[in-house]
Amino acid sequence: MLESRWRLGNFLCVGLDSELSRIPELARKGTVRATIVNFNRAIVDATKDLVCAFKPNPAFYEAYGEDGWSALRKTIAYIQEAAPEVPVILDAKRGDIGSTNAAYAQSAFDHLGADAITVQPYLGSEPLAPFFEREDKGIIVLCHTSNPGAGEIQNLVVGNEPLYKTVARLAVGKWNTRGNCCVMVGATYPEELIDVRKIVGDMPILTAGIGAQNGDLARTMRAGLDKNKKGLIVNASRSVIFASSEPDFAQAARRKAEELHGEMRKALS
Amino acid sequence: MLESRWRLGNFLCVGLDSELSRIPELARKGTVRATIVNFNRAIVDATKDLVCAFKPNPAFYEAYGEDGWSALRKTIAYIQEAAPEVPVILDAKRGDIGSTNAAYAQSAFDHLGADAITVQPYLGSEPLAPFFEREDKGIIVLCHTSNPGAGEIQNLVVGNEPLYKTVARLAVGKWNTRGNCCVMVGATYPEELIDVRKIVGDMPILTAGIGAQNGDLARTMRAGLDKNKKGLIVNASRSVIFASSEPDFAQAARRKAEELHGEMRKALS
Repeated sequence: MLESRWRLGNFLCVGLDSELSRIPELARKGTVRATIVNFNRAIVDATKDLVCAFKPNPAFYEAYGEDGWSALRKTIAYIQEAAPEVPVILDAKRGDIGSTNAAYAQSAFDHLGADAITVQPYLGSEPLAPFFEREDKGIIVLCHTSNPGAGEIQNLVVGNEPLYKTVARLAVGKWNTRGNCCVMVGATYPEELIDVRKIVGDMPILTAGIGAQNGDLARTMRAGLDKNKKGLIVNASRSVIFASSEPDFAQAARRKAEELHGEMRKALS
Repeated sequence: MLESRWRLGNFLCVGLDSELSRIPELARKGTVRATIVNFNRAIVDATKDLVCAFKPNPAFYEAYGEDGWSALRKTIAYIQEAAPEVPVILDAKRGDIGSTNAAYAQSAFDHLGADAITVQPYLGSEPLAPFFEREDKGIIVLCHTSNPGAGEIQNLVVGNEPLYKTVARLAVGKWNTRGNCCVMVGATYPEELIDVRKIVGDMPILTAGIGAQNGDLARTMRAGLDKNKKGLIVNASRSVIFASSEPDFAQAARRKAEELHGEMRKALS
């Protein structure tokens, strides 16, 4: 699915971090669930031709319990209906022992219908098996995250290199036997993105932090694309979906997505 | 809350990993939600006087989407009603950037009403702030997990010591300013449990893996108790809650809990 999106020149991933308190007045409906779904539908409709993926983060749905989960499921179902060619990444950052990860895989893939999930590397290779066994799903392992303090653990030197490089090597050398492993590297760390790209070859990289977190887009593209100028999923969440709190919020989201899409195409050529 | 449970000699934590397919016939009701809640109520009633905490793992609830989440919320509400003196640990192993962790804290503490949550250390200190800011809640950071391959990342040597010791030092030196930080160490690694206890002093340690994962209980107690013979939360999940699949499942869970409780008291003296 990603391959055909990249061929269209679409590298933007829109993060559906649809925090209830920031949803514009015009998108509001009678219930939490209806409000979140209505807002997400408007954002999906406004941006679907410009993106390579949508990425809901379950935290912003779990915050409202079963109503939020219902909104998350309905949002993913809507994307599958309105934009069946666009994959959905569940940015859940899950990570537990193997028997528990099997339940998380069931939740993400069978219940919610996501196409990919983000996972934590701290517990090692063996508990990730229930994710990787899902050959038709993408498993995106956190490598170097976008937050200011990411290096505190991820840059600790193990052997001769920072931990995140060891994680990248495990991704290529051990976790990608079925060809469904990807890694996540924050756009706020372009040097680390270059390092990881060198290690992982043409493995897809999800990068985040170009919007509200101030990563530099052109630099991210140069650092993260593979040698075929593909392999990169560039997420922007709040800067797109909350581009305006006025009645024009969906058009504003599209304008922001078009702007990012244009910058990405420019960086490609 | 834990202190008063320990004074009673209660160190057992019952893990409510209530996987639907393993719930005995007799506990089943018309819906997924009713079945899970009914089963959990029976387990809570049968074991509440023997435990220091209950620990639902959301993975087994998320697997059933909004119905599962509703069952999780109702289970926690039931514990608060039937055993208000027993804290609830949400074993969610969450970990994201700070603004997202704020939503996870809202989910765990405000929506579900849990007393504590387990979290991932991979993103470093700064994104954990929205958890630690909740002074009345316990924040349990994964240090050395119970799974067979835990050491692959956690035993990587940084400086002069394995990574899990560095995490334990961060817990004591940096994360415990409000006195609400705890760590998790697998009972399947008694040597590592000894090491972590030396580092963290009297900080509470959650340990798991004595049941289905075959950790040695007496050894775990010796390794994990603090110098006042307190500070340890010893989880057993499947070995207690699925002790029998027959109509006597609740009595069987109690018998298993009593057996573990007895062994723990023996190890204490």
